[in-house]
Amino acid sequence: METLSENRCFGGVQGVYKHRSDATGTDMTFGLFLPEEAQDGPVPVLWFLAGLTCTHENAMTKAGAQVWAAEHGIALCFPDTSPRGEGVPNDDAYDLGQGAGFYIDATQEPWSEHFKMWTYTAEELPALLGEHFAIDLDRQSITGHSMGGHGALTMAMALKGRFRSVSAFAPICNPTQSDWGRKQFSAYWGDEENWGPHDATLLMQDAGFDGPLLIDTGTDDQFGDLLGTEAFAAAMAAKRQEGQLRLQKGYDHSYYFISTFIEDHVAFHAEALWR
Amino acid sequence: METLSENRCFGGVQGVYKHRSDATGTDMTFGLFLPEEAQDGPVPVLWFLAGLTCTHENAMTKAGAQVWAAEHGIALCFPDTSPRGEGVPNDDAYDLGQGAGFYIDATQEPWSEHFKMWTYTAEELPALLGEHFAIDLDRQSITGHSMGGHGALTMAMALKGRFRSVSAFAPICNPTQSDWGRKQFSAYWGDEENWGPHDATLLMQDAGFDGPLLIDTGTDDQFGDLLGTEAFAAAMAAKRQEGQLRLQKGYDHSYYFISTFIEDHVAFHAEALWR
Repeated sequence: METLSENRCFGGVQGVYKHRSDATGTDMTFGLFLPEEAQDGPVPVLWFLAGLTCTHENAMTKAGAQVWAAEHGIALCFPDTSPRGEGVPNDDAYDLGQGAGFYIDATQEPWSEHFKMWTYTAEELPALLGEHFAIDLDRQSITGHSMGGHGALTMAMALKGRFRSVSAFAPICNPTQSDWGRKQFSAYWGDEENWGPHDATLLMQDAGFDGPLLIDTGTDDQFGDLLGTEAFAAAMAAKRQEGQLRLQKGYDHSYYFISTFIEDHVAFHAEALWR
Repeated sequence: METLSENRCFGGVQGVYKHRSDATGTDMTFGLFLPEEAQDGPVPVLWFLAGLTCTHENAMTKAGAQVWAAEHGIALCFPDTSPRGEGVPNDDAYDLGQGAGFYIDATQEPWSEHFKMWTYTAEELPALLGEHFAIDLDRQSITGHSMGGHGALTMAMALKGRFRSVSAFAPICNPTQSDWGRKQFSAYWGDEENWGPHDATLLMQDAGFDGPLLIDTGTDDQFGDLLGTEAFAAAMAAKRQEGQLRLQKGYDHSYYFISTFIEDHVAFHAEALWR
């Protein structure tokens, strides 16, 4: 593993690291914030899964999460959203291919060789963190934005017992019914019959999440019609899922929205992680 | 108007008053908490509409709202849930007749003579408060529990511009699709074609509420299947209504649930009332 950068940040260290991934067959880059407490032993970790077009860098530099993670003594991990590089297939559209991994394992050509973002994010990278850093893998929580909110919600519900809490900013909630989902699932998985259980609304209707859940979505989200918030809201209420759905007046889909409410989200996760 | 009792309470006064109502054609009793600040001039008011079987007294004595109303300098008004007395029709069921006015104006015999709880709560009682107490009718907010949550949500949406904020505890959200609603609407209004716009989910689908909204409902609510929370949640998200829906793990339908979260609700309303 190669250290690309390490910067002192709120008493801890914001690092960026590159490593060879078995899952994607490429080099992968991620950001990791370790609070000061990590010098004395393993700390809990909050995953932040980013949205379409993002790399490991967007949330790391724009979400403003480190100040609150430092206050609560929590690490933050910022994975990339897809494999990248010259040998990796891509598409002219912003919402397919590189920067648009959707946190699933592709089975269809040409995507299936490298686009294994579920395995990478859910299995390979956590193991790497546990091996190389002062991270307590028994205390993990997860959040994400848009496509990353989809990733956070689906991982939290599919990987039972893994995460103590889950939150999301403007998540894609019902991708099997949205152009943000059907297009990518079709490309990566082919026919609809092959689509796995990677839809947060369907997972909520099935088993829900065994822990607290928090979602913030802006009422002026310019992509609101693609998110499927109303389907997830109904499923959450019908399941009697412990949680909060907050519709924040006037906020849109941007990192300005995220940075406004990230304090609440980190505090929400800290309560679950330090219980 | 007759003063039934006045007690010093958190630096202010908790009063109970009886008056002749033109709307119901009966005597009506209500509770009113005035904070200390009311000695110096009109204060904002938060209405608390109670649920089935309740009188003016239940929320007044069991919700624990006065401590927070005093902190924020807000009055609390606790109306009764129906007309009462010997000449007032009733039903053996707990959910029809006295104690079950549903905050609507009945048109069908035998209910139509006295069961005018919409007019009483929305028109007559506010005017009475403004005339006799240091209440600023330009600053009103409303909350309620169960049937009273139905009342709070429907009044907030139907009486545009009246309330600055609305909240509810375990509200009946979709009465036209519930046994808590269809039975009473049928009795009070007759055929379904006569039912007015007194369904919070339908009102949300139509115009929503021009202000912040907060709902708390327990995941272990023993009447959860009667509330229609999922329909309201979907409507709220689809409308992009500014607001929060919180599903509180392990809480039921009782005043123990209400008293746990009343601090949040009073603070929520205070922010809107003192803006």
